[in-house]
Amino acid sequence: MAQPRLPRLTRPGSTPRTTVRRIPAKTVRETGVLYAILDAGLVAHVAVTGPDGQPFVLPVGYARDGHAVLFHGSTGSRLFQGLAAGAPTCLTVTLLDGIVLARSAFESSMNYRSVMVLGTCSVLTGPDKEVALERITEHLLPGRWADARHPSKKESAATIVVSLPLTETSVKVNDGPPDDDEADLALPIWAGNVPIEERFGRPVAAPDLTGAFDVPDYVKRWRR
Amino acid sequence: MAQPRLPRLTRPGSTPRTTVRRIPAKTVRETGVLYAILDAGLVAHVAVTGPDGQPFVLPVGYARDGHAVLFHGSTGSRLFQGLAAGAPTCLTVTLLDGIVLARSAFESSMNYRSVMVLGTCSVLTGPDKEVALERITEHLLPGRWADARHPSKKESAATIVVSLPLTETSVKVNDGPPDDDEADLALPIWAGNVPIEERFGRPVAAPDLTGAFDVPDYVKRWRR
Repeated sequence: MAQPRLPRLTRPGSTPRTTVRRIPAKTVRETGVLYAILDAGLVAHVAVTGPDGQPFVLPVGYARDGHAVLFHGSTGSRLFQGLAAGAPTCLTVTLLDGIVLARSAFESSMNYRSVMVLGTCSVLTGPDKEVALERITEHLLPGRWADARHPSKKESAATIVVSLPLTETSVKVNDGPPDDDEADLALPIWAGNVPIEERFGRPVAAPDLTGAFDVPDYVKRWRR
Repeated sequence: MAQPRLPRLTRPGSTPRTTVRRIPAKTVRETGVLYAILDAGLVAHVAVTGPDGQPFVLPVGYARDGHAVLFHGSTGSRLFQGLAAGAPTCLTVTLLDGIVLARSAFESSMNYRSVMVLGTCSVLTGPDKEVALERITEHLLPGRWADARHPSKKESAATIVVSLPLTETSVKVNDGPPDDDEADLALPIWAGNVPIEERFGRPVAAPDLTGAFDVPDYVKRWRR
């Protein structure tokens, strides 16, 4: 990753800033792939740069909503205040799919799917904000919105909810076997890849749960 | 994540920039925790800001080496050229451990361990560069360095290897059950958390593997 064999980034939404001029490997042009990666991820890494030029990278839960990504933070966070004020940002989602063992160290890498979104956020208010909080909750905890207590006015006021449009994006996908140099193929070394799988474990009830509750059916249906 | 209940960040290496002034939740002060998170992760997200103030967030494979993080990229990458030239950066590693279902949407969140490192990179050359490439390979593919073909002069020349010291860091850890408001405890809603586990799948041999190789023992020992 960020290694010499990074696939080229091109998409209908790509620009000179998001088109990597590197060894062309795999070209991903479909909006469907962009959406699928965003829909499969849970955590994005978002950059915001301070006035002194120091960037910060924050993990955030998010949701895709049509052709935008929604996420939220605290009104008390200076970094989120910066995003809300229109600071240019980058949101990256990376799904790690495996380890690639080439014969050479140089060609060894990882299988992954990654999306990068450049742009500026807009702050959501009123009904848009409420819908966005539902979307984020439903992406991270499918089925929960109908069950959970919804945000109070005070809680909502403590939360900044932003939308980042998917207008300037890039998609990188690296999958499959290693891509060794021709000259290395005869080396007496095993080569291949080792998949990485993510799955949900068994739900753990909160110790302060009173009464006889079953794990909700919607939680039992969660799969990764 | 980046939600109202983000734990406070404090460590011996923390500074006003890395100390989040938010609701104090969990304080992680130990260098051992910092090291353990970095050693457990495979992918970091690294920020670099262009001259126009646009930040980019790149996924990179990395390794911890003592009190520094090592990672590498292509000499052809303008972003890596920026890092090599001393642009201030932020490297974040996030391990997602589970989903937290509070009674309220507001308190629902994720369990995770995250490290943020601020600073500037130094470029490694000569024997330091070679050792760093070994460290990165051995972190991502333990046991592989002794087996794989080592980088040629040409491959090494195409690679920028950098070291980012762990001098300005923060650690966030959120784990365990939800932390509901007192008033919500009596709501007739299941609450708890659902762990997320990552594991290696069965190794897949490259289709161009000639001869009868067994999956190496060091690969069979990989665990997540």
